[in-house]
Amino acid sequence: MNQSQEKLERSVLRVGDLGTSVIDKKVWARGRLHTSRAKGKQCFFLLRQQQSTVQCLLAVSESTSKAFVKFVAGITKESVIDVEGIVRSVPQKIEGATQQDVELHVTQVWVISAAEPRLPLQIEDASRPEEEKEGELAIRVNQETRLDNRVLDLRTPTNQAIFRIQAAVCRLFREALDQRKFVEIHTPKIISAASEGGANVFTVSYFKGSAYLAQSPQLYKQMAIAADFEKVYTIGAVFRAEDSNTHRHLTEFVGLDLEMAFHSHYHEVLDTIGVVLTEVFRGLQKDCMQEIATVNRQFPSEPFTFLDPPLRLEFPEAVEMLRQAGEQIGDEDDLSTPMEKLLGRLVKAKYDTDFYILDKYPLAVRPFYTMPDPNNKKYSNSYDIFMRGEEIMSGAQRIHDPEYLSERAKHHGIDLSKIKAYIDSFRYGCPPHAGGGIGMERVAMLFLGLDNIRKTSMFPRDPKRITP
Amino acid sequence: MNQSQEKLERSVLRVGDLGTSVIDKKVWARGRLHTSRAKGKQCFFLLRQQQSTVQCLLAVSESTSKAFVKFVAGITKESVIDVEGIVRSVPQKIEGATQQDVELHVTQVWVISAAEPRLPLQIEDASRPEEEKEGELAIRVNQETRLDNRVLDLRTPTNQAIFRIQAAVCRLFREALDQRKFVEIHTPKIISAASEGGANVFTVSYFKGSAYLAQSPQLYKQMAIAADFEKVYTIGAVFRAEDSNTHRHLTEFVGLDLEMAFHSHYHEVLDTIGVVLTEVFRGLQKDCMQEIATVNRQFPSEPFTFLDPPLRLEFPEAVEMLRQAGEQIGDEDDLSTPMEKLLGRLVKAKYDTDFYILDKYPLAVRPFYTMPDPNNKKYSNSYDIFMRGEEIMSGAQRIHDPEYLSERAKHHGIDLSKIKAYIDSFRYGCPPHAGGGIGMERVAMLFLGLDNIRKTSMFPRDPKRITP
Repeated sequence: MNQSQEKLERSVLRVGDLGTSVIDKKVWARGRLHTSRAKGKQCFFLLRQQQSTVQCLLAVSESTSKAFVKFVAGITKESVIDVEGIVRSVPQKIEGATQQDVELHVTQVWVISAAEPRLPLQIEDASRPEEEKEGELAIRVNQETRLDNRVLDLRTPTNQAIFRIQAAVCRLFREALDQRKFVEIHTPKIISAASEGGANVFTVSYFKGSAYLAQSPQLYKQMAIAADFEKVYTIGAVFRAEDSNTHRHLTEFVGLDLEMAFHSHYHEVLDTIGVVLTEVFRGLQKDCMQEIATVNRQFPSEPFTFLDPPLRLEFPEAVEMLRQAGEQIGDEDDLSTPMEKLLGRLVKAKYDTDFYILDKYPLAVRPFYTMPDPNNKKYSNSYDIFMRGEEIMSGAQRIHDPEYLSERAKHHGIDLSKIKAYIDSFRYGCPPHAGGGIGMERVAMLFLGLDNIRKTSMFPRDPKRITP
Repeated sequence: MNQSQEKLERSVLRVGDLGTSVIDKKVWARGRLHTSRAKGKQCFFLLRQQQSTVQCLLAVSESTSKAFVKFVAGITKESVIDVEGIVRSVPQKIEGATQQDVELHVTQVWVISAAEPRLPLQIEDASRPEEEKEGELAIRVNQETRLDNRVLDLRTPTNQAIFRIQAAVCRLFREALDQRKFVEIHTPKIISAASEGGANVFTVSYFKGSAYLAQSPQLYKQMAIAADFEKVYTIGAVFRAEDSNTHRHLTEFVGLDLEMAFHSHYHEVLDTIGVVLTEVFRGLQKDCMQEIATVNRQFPSEPFTFLDPPLRLEFPEAVEMLRQAGEQIGDEDDLSTPMEKLLGRLVKAKYDTDFYILDKYPLAVRPFYTMPDPNNKKYSNSYDIFMRGEEIMSGAQRIHDPEYLSERAKHHGIDLSKIKAYIDSFRYGCPPHAGGGIGMERVAMLFLGLDNIRKTSMFPRDPKRITP
């Protein structure tokens, strides 16, 4: 067991760097024993490091005993091993490895950390493309088994790629906002009052009293605006105690939240959100080309399309498109999930984009703090944003006047005493502002065309799962 | 009230940009009415936007009625206003404003959002330097009043600066790690079992059962290592149900956490952590010079010093220094908080650094998962990191072997059934690894030499405060 006994000056190469440039060199590499087979006096094995594999050959010789070959052949799959060997070119490409031009003629093998002999899932099974092909093994690993054994499941090339893409979503989002002088803030998750009337909120024991988990950083973002930060964003955990067991709901997810003061019109904010998301998509296609291809090999999907500047529709236009497609929907009805999906297909057919903004929702279906449309009292200054026909963000111009906010809350039947702190935040002057909250896992899922949000949450939480 | 009635094409200048370059131009600016005084037919007021202020002058004239001057003189302090005026040079510098070379001869004023006439605290009082000077007002705003009225308190130049510095800490930390190919991950805050035996953990009602709030992302970072991500970091909320009402404890704070697989020795990781933090400090001094100066004007402190590479001491050396200074401490005792402070002063005197790493803590004072020192069973491969004599990070090489981990847990009297999931994470091979968790608010507080962590948490949480 490595207890940091000594500092080795040994240079260790990455498996992905083993190629024709190091032919005939003796090198060290560390990785996992992916597969192995013994064949008489020889043992072939694949050494895997993240998304790369190299074929290794150990043969009985003057310096290698038969017992040693047998020992190596007995190393359990997924064990972490150090391998020393000479890089040799091969007469024909090795189909089964990512390093196809070379193999490693092994001189030493050390077991760094042994895996148990029985694995609850096989990495090869978990990596197999969804589509079944004739003559190929039909073994797949179901989602529950994957999630129960996430430490193994995450080792597949697809998962290695997905979580790098997820990291890029956050990085690109931040870069786009930093560039526009947004300030990153951190908002508390433990709050004293349930923000939107107390439904769907988790309760926490807090010393001798109790508290809640924030369903959104909205109040705090708005306070930062009232405190003159002008443009803020925050990335963090958001909690929803909704008993929804669907492909797109989690009880805990990562929110990409932003809020921005504007001068004359909330479209200043909406345009910014549109540009920021467009930059994220373009950045992903540029920086994560290889990762996207890796995911597509296992889970094929159409490439994600978007327009620049993004398409913005108004709610009545959407209603009209749905009616023309045969749907029955009232002017002030909210869209059902199937209608959203259908609208996504109609928009894609008409405008060739998987990404669009739907502006001007009916006032009746939005929360009390939403600013009504000044020109038509049926509508509001609010918007949802969609990717492949699924909602990834909801947002609005917020009411920044405490008296009008109280009036709207009363109209919604909300007990004013419970939202006093919220209303009081606007008593000392607050610029008009708008913002929204984006579900990070949804962006990753829909960008990649995946079918379940649990594929883009490293350790997903839903009403039935809080482990591992 | 702005309901986004129209899109104004008006170009609005920032108060900070009003200077000699726009002399005699007619401009619009938006800001807060900072102070005002009427004087006969004139009204002088200061317009403030974030950290900048400009003097404005409104006088009765052909186009400006007496009633209008009176109206403007009556606008409440902290109201958000739009001002149109002509930029004029002034014969002598205006001491009371940041824009000292010009004043605005006002032609129009619009109230965008009025503040209530009685403010619970005055921005000027909240902005006044700590040190009392003869002949100056002695009014200060105490911390509870500040935190109760955070929306006002955060408007001071110092707070505007502090939270920009805080954002820079996170940005610089991420940049340093991204550059070294760390992958950003997101770990769940809702967990099924209390990570370290169940003390100091908040309980959450979770549908029909219950769950806990994560005291650290450590288990999940380690699972990401066991899942081959090699180098990971995460920035997010960390929860501690400790009933500590001190200047440096919060019940919810932002953790800058990282974990990294290494080849032969945990110093590979410790060196990385040292370099990363050094880059953060250097970046702050470069990018936030102005903000640091602003904070120092209100809360003076010595500039933060650090060595490159950072100083690394071993625990026995620290014990020796403390003994020479007259302290009584056993070889395997942990450091008390006063001893840490004293050690900070001794190190500063001897090495001229406010930042150092203390390596090789006694095994007896560290958690069960800490890897023992291979050469001396009294010590361990673990470390704390200090800024100005206060701990900002704790970390270690973790035991990556499930059998040895079980043995150490038993030795600590821990019920193995409660940490089964943790131990099982290492059953399928795991490279040796080390890491640590840094308290973001502590880094900001100690870098700036502030006296209370509530100054660097935007909405602090402690046993007695969960509002606003």
